[in-house]
Amino acid sequence: MQNRQWILASHPRGAADEATWTLIEAQRPTPGPGQILIRTQWLSVDPYMRGRISPSANYAKGVQIGEVMQGGGVGEVVASNHPAWKIGDIAESMDVGWQEWAVLTPDLPGASRVNKVDPGIAPPQASLSWLGMTGLTAYIGLLEIGRPRPGDTVVVSAASGAVGQLVGQIAKLAGARVVGIAGSDEKLAWCRTIGFDATINYKTADDLTSAIAAACPNGVNVFFDNTGGPIYDAVLKNLAVAARVVICGRIALADTFDQEDIGLRASSRLIVTRAMIQGLVVFDWWHRRDEALARLAAWHKSGAIQTKEDVLEGFERVPQAFLRMMAGQNFGKQLVRL
Amino acid sequence: MQNRQWILASHPRGAADEATWTLIEAQRPTPGPGQILIRTQWLSVDPYMRGRISPSANYAKGVQIGEVMQGGGVGEVVASNHPAWKIGDIAESMDVGWQEWAVLTPDLPGASRVNKVDPGIAPPQASLSWLGMTGLTAYIGLLEIGRPRPGDTVVVSAASGAVGQLVGQIAKLAGARVVGIAGSDEKLAWCRTIGFDATINYKTADDLTSAIAAACPNGVNVFFDNTGGPIYDAVLKNLAVAARVVICGRIALADTFDQEDIGLRASSRLIVTRAMIQGLVVFDWWHRRDEALARLAAWHKSGAIQTKEDVLEGFERVPQAFLRMMAGQNFGKQLVRL
Repeated sequence: MQNRQWILASHPRGAADEATWTLIEAQRPTPGPGQILIRTQWLSVDPYMRGRISPSANYAKGVQIGEVMQGGGVGEVVASNHPAWKIGDIAESMDVGWQEWAVLTPDLPGASRVNKVDPGIAPPQASLSWLGMTGLTAYIGLLEIGRPRPGDTVVVSAASGAVGQLVGQIAKLAGARVVGIAGSDEKLAWCRTIGFDATINYKTADDLTSAIAAACPNGVNVFFDNTGGPIYDAVLKNLAVAARVVICGRIALADTFDQEDIGLRASSRLIVTRAMIQGLVVFDWWHRRDEALARLAAWHKSGAIQTKEDVLEGFERVPQAFLRMMAGQNFGKQLVRL
Repeated sequence: MQNRQWILASHPRGAADEATWTLIEAQRPTPGPGQILIRTQWLSVDPYMRGRISPSANYAKGVQIGEVMQGGGVGEVVASNHPAWKIGDIAESMDVGWQEWAVLTPDLPGASRVNKVDPGIAPPQASLSWLGMTGLTAYIGLLEIGRPRPGDTVVVSAASGAVGQLVGQIAKLAGARVVGIAGSDEKLAWCRTIGFDATINYKTADDLTSAIAAACPNGVNVFFDNTGGPIYDAVLKNLAVAARVVICGRIALADTFDQEDIGLRASSRLIVTRAMIQGLVVFDWWHRRDEALARLAAWHKSGAIQTKEDVLEGFERVPQAFLRMMAGQNFGKQLVRL
């Protein structure tokens, strides 16, 4: 009764690589009182995981060397000691980890909650993307921190990514004009098909600041930033009065995670524009999850939002999936099917 | 019937100096319909004025070469074509400018409003500091953007300055613990006498980041920043979860006004702490002026807030007053008595 697991082999100081994790075979675990055992079907790889394997402190407990890599997943219940769960149910949880079998505790609070997946609403892996943490991130970050008004210009970096694609479409629903930034023309063409009004390829733009200015003649009212770094600086130079900047991710800087982030401090611009910058940690907003996902489900059903997945097959490819997501090689939400 | 005026001679690209303005003698003006003429008694010098003489665009119309330097002042009404104003009234306005006689239009809206000074509440020059724009800046910036809660740690830079001294005392009234940063032990000793719980001399601290950490063992909940630059970076490294940063001024960077402000972008820290940074322009909040000043007047009357002025005598010394304020050589609100 084997359970293959990817465990952390080292804390990367720069970019992670295949040697960051080691594949081991452990004993398949047994659920205790109040617990369930699942067979993992899908695993999610997300930028926040880079912080969990950093040697420095972070907002959540990191993964120690020799521990199973943290990560959200979906699986079928194969044993249950919990009255609300029966064999064959589909469970989604942030606590699955990179392993083929996982014991979960459904009654844990907050982000450790185990959620029952209703296959009638969407395919089960949606609960790892637009109908899960990813969707909550986009919904809350845009609507509660970004607060777009009809007629606002909303700029989204990593626009075709798991979060970015949702932010753009929710901003359209809120009556905003949406400008997406990404690193390939193919990604940007897709953004336009799902409703983005304008797009900018940051890799081929002559001057990114000028390109943003041209795409946003009245300035940027809301900036939903998934990248940080030079894209952030270029957008900050184009903020409109009373702009709101949501710092959701900084994937452009993820591999320099332990270094100070030096760039545009932009204090004069922040005074002149009275702009606001705020960091987002989605786990603060778990109490709004049901509300957000109900609304996302309704939008998806009506066709108001479309989503794209990028799926790798096979448990042995989880690190590869993580690394290609970190390198921006994915096109849409990166998932692994076991 | 002469009217001495300080007019702008050049737009400084680095630090302003005495040659930035020229003293001229013009004709004393005559009030038109609905206007009043005042004889200037007090002039205020404030950091925002540095932006008004910058060659680059700013949030308010700048001073052109040959124009009278902008600035707030107080004076006695010597002629009136307005039914609500009579000779002998004391008027305060942002539109006085650096001149001995000024025509004002009482019915202009917003920040151009002419305010009647009641000498029964405080000396007339108070309307240029704690009972005027300076007080409104501290009150709104701290309470509406900083939002201190009882038990919070509030850090104030330029702590003994016109705004800083008020911020610290209002934060104490809100139940916060207050840490002041300034550049002289004498200034900091005074801050402690008016209620600051701890103080840091940024010029003599071995390591400013460590000094702030030592003074703020639970982190910084609210940072009211009047300086920008390295002090800003050091405080940002000490933010607590859900911190609020008010960017009120950047006097440390004022003489590099036209250069990009490069320093700690701090995006990772902002995500980890979910902190918020927001720029403040007090002119946005003029509709709250009466409320704020009524409360400040009551606090001052009860002894809950104390204030310090730094007065230079003589109209010919207005540029000197501005330059010493920009250099941090003033101790308390910098004013000029004519």
